[in-house]
Amino acid sequence: MKMALALAKKGVGFTSPNPVVGAVVVKDGAVVGKGYHRKAGGPHAEVEALRDAGALSKGATLFVTLEPCHHFGRTPPCTRAILEGGIRRVVAAMADPNPAVTGGGLDFLRRKGLETVVGILEDRARLLNEAYIKYVLTRRPFVTAKCAATLDGRLATRTGDSRWVTGPKARNHVHRMRHAADAILVGVGTVKKDDPRLTTRIAGKKVSHPLRIILDTRFRLPEAAKVLRDTTDSDTLIVIGESYKKNPRVLAKKERIEKAGVQVMATPTRAGGIDLDRLMDRLGARGVTSLLIEGGSRVLASAFSCRIVDKIAFFFAPKILGGDDGYPICRGSGPQRMAEALSVERIRLRRFGDDVMIEGYMPSAGKSPTPPGKG
Amino acid sequence: MKMALALAKKGVGFTSPNPVVGAVVVKDGAVVGKGYHRKAGGPHAEVEALRDAGALSKGATLFVTLEPCHHFGRTPPCTRAILEGGIRRVVAAMADPNPAVTGGGLDFLRRKGLETVVGILEDRARLLNEAYIKYVLTRRPFVTAKCAATLDGRLATRTGDSRWVTGPKARNHVHRMRHAADAILVGVGTVKKDDPRLTTRIAGKKVSHPLRIILDTRFRLPEAAKVLRDTTDSDTLIVIGESYKKNPRVLAKKERIEKAGVQVMATPTRAGGIDLDRLMDRLGARGVTSLLIEGGSRVLASAFSCRIVDKIAFFFAPKILGGDDGYPICRGSGPQRMAEALSVERIRLRRFGDDVMIEGYMPSAGKSPTPPGKG
Repeated sequence: MKMALALAKKGVGFTSPNPVVGAVVVKDGAVVGKGYHRKAGGPHAEVEALRDAGALSKGATLFVTLEPCHHFGRTPPCTRAILEGGIRRVVAAMADPNPAVTGGGLDFLRRKGLETVVGILEDRARLLNEAYIKYVLTRRPFVTAKCAATLDGRLATRTGDSRWVTGPKARNHVHRMRHAADAILVGVGTVKKDDPRLTTRIAGKKVSHPLRIILDTRFRLPEAAKVLRDTTDSDTLIVIGESYKKNPRVLAKKERIEKAGVQVMATPTRAGGIDLDRLMDRLGARGVTSLLIEGGSRVLASAFSCRIVDKIAFFFAPKILGGDDGYPICRGSGPQRMAEALSVERIRLRRFGDDVMIEGYMPSAGKSPTPPGKG
Repeated sequence: MKMALALAKKGVGFTSPNPVVGAVVVKDGAVVGKGYHRKAGGPHAEVEALRDAGALSKGATLFVTLEPCHHFGRTPPCTRAILEGGIRRVVAAMADPNPAVTGGGLDFLRRKGLETVVGILEDRARLLNEAYIKYVLTRRPFVTAKCAATLDGRLATRTGDSRWVTGPKARNHVHRMRHAADAILVGVGTVKKDDPRLTTRIAGKKVSHPLRIILDTRFRLPEAAKVLRDTTDSDTLIVIGESYKKNPRVLAKKERIEKAGVQVMATPTRAGGIDLDRLMDRLGARGVTSLLIEGGSRVLASAFSCRIVDKIAFFFAPKILGGDDGYPICRGSGPQRMAEALSVERIRLRRFGDDVMIEGYMPSAGKSPTPPGKG
């Protein structure tokens, strides 16, 4: 199963809106077939592993990181391929979380006389597909809020200088997070301050570029911004406030920008900013299963106050600015009592060189009835 | 040597201005004597271990966490006891860092025909006595800056509520830090906000209470504050600005407070606050070898800007306030460029329940030519 999980990881970034899945065929104690879901629309992991095993799959055990599907999607059901391959035993790390599917594939195979096991290394399998699990349960993206701060909690100096807070290893990890995400979101303030490209750059690796989303209620985006001149195969989406969409300046700018192939979407506002809760529904409807929020302070605060954040990834660099005039992690009004703070659960620490990443989950994330994982 | 280091730890909190030291006498592969320096003025670790070994010390090896002393202080030199005990070999974790002593004890013993070794588990020995090492080299206290913040970098909500940021395990550790420190320092703002007792409370353990120092430039301390009504055996020291010392209100208040057994000290100011650099010299002269700064935001910022901080201990609780109106970790003006941030080195992570502590060293700490430890 560990090998199947490692295989599944190879698909990260390419399978959305499908989960990542790995499969291994084992016969007489030897691995005779391996496969993983390489990209959405392509063969499922089970089919790849069975093909790899060929005739050796007869009487073998199939290890798979997710319950095999039993419905026609873009590909025929894996249950059929498993039967045809003569597999005798199926070991799945976890059941399919899709409410329309749960129990389907394994139940069917059991009725057909195969031995089935479920729940092996389930925590790791759930972690690997935490975004997919949230998405199939809620049709809203799994949201990760990322920031990079000094130890005294500053994203940038008072002049806005944030190059660089963290070191190269941490920044590389952010690119791996972008690679894994369907979309990345920043506020227009970050675009004006840093003029980022918001693309994925990992040396020596074929990467996937997320959809770039800019929150820009009043459509203040500079038309020379790098995000508008992107040459990757992914899109840029500017989210403006609904009340601004008929403004003549906005209309003219929208037309110019859309001509360059960039989308502009008007959405409801709340308290003067984009209503992120409503936006998540819209992004979910567009098939965005995972979203990485990269700041700045106002967008992070808004995401927390709208309770859309599922997971945090806060990088802390080993440095101290020593004042409170730099950019805070969150900007805006906080609660009166410490007891009203939002809780972060299942804290996990990672180090990237001298930088520290604190990861954790927000149990309050909207419309997410069962947080993925148990650990 | 591990046993000797563990013995040394038992003395933490009681030996200042001496180092903590542990010693073990080993003969024919068996431990025949153990001892540690229990308190300043009491017998040194070597003497305790030799007494414990009795006649068995003849021809034995002495393991000691610090080079034995070779001068008369409050007790006779340990080198004499080592010779009298018939020890044949001395293994020291580290040489005495005291510039007046270095090489003295071991050199002398070598000349007397004993075999000597130095540098076994030296990093751990230096860590254990990092405050002592700084103090003997500079005659200034080893300063640790401690804070407890939310993940978004807030010490308290906008109303000043900070009960509690961290959980019981982290708070217990703070009491262990107080136990180990000679003095603890807070600003008068913290006293007005939280009215802390600033004593050491560790269940089931005899503890040492640090000197309580309150920075109070304009002498605004409420006379009902708990720190003024303390019943422990340690003192409270109020540090006021020199320019206020002749103010009639201040004079009258000083008299009242001093009658209650609390000291008031006038010191030079800098940029409207107490000059912490000068204060460190004064505290060093009073024999304060280690100082724990517990906040608040202004005091922490001032300590960093004066470059008096040797070590940081930042606790982060798994919670998010989500605004920037709460108390920041540092209050005041920061630099323009991220590259001007103060560096923290040798980062170490610890967990206390769900709280995370990030420890590290500030290489810029004033007048500390050689940072203790190498790790």
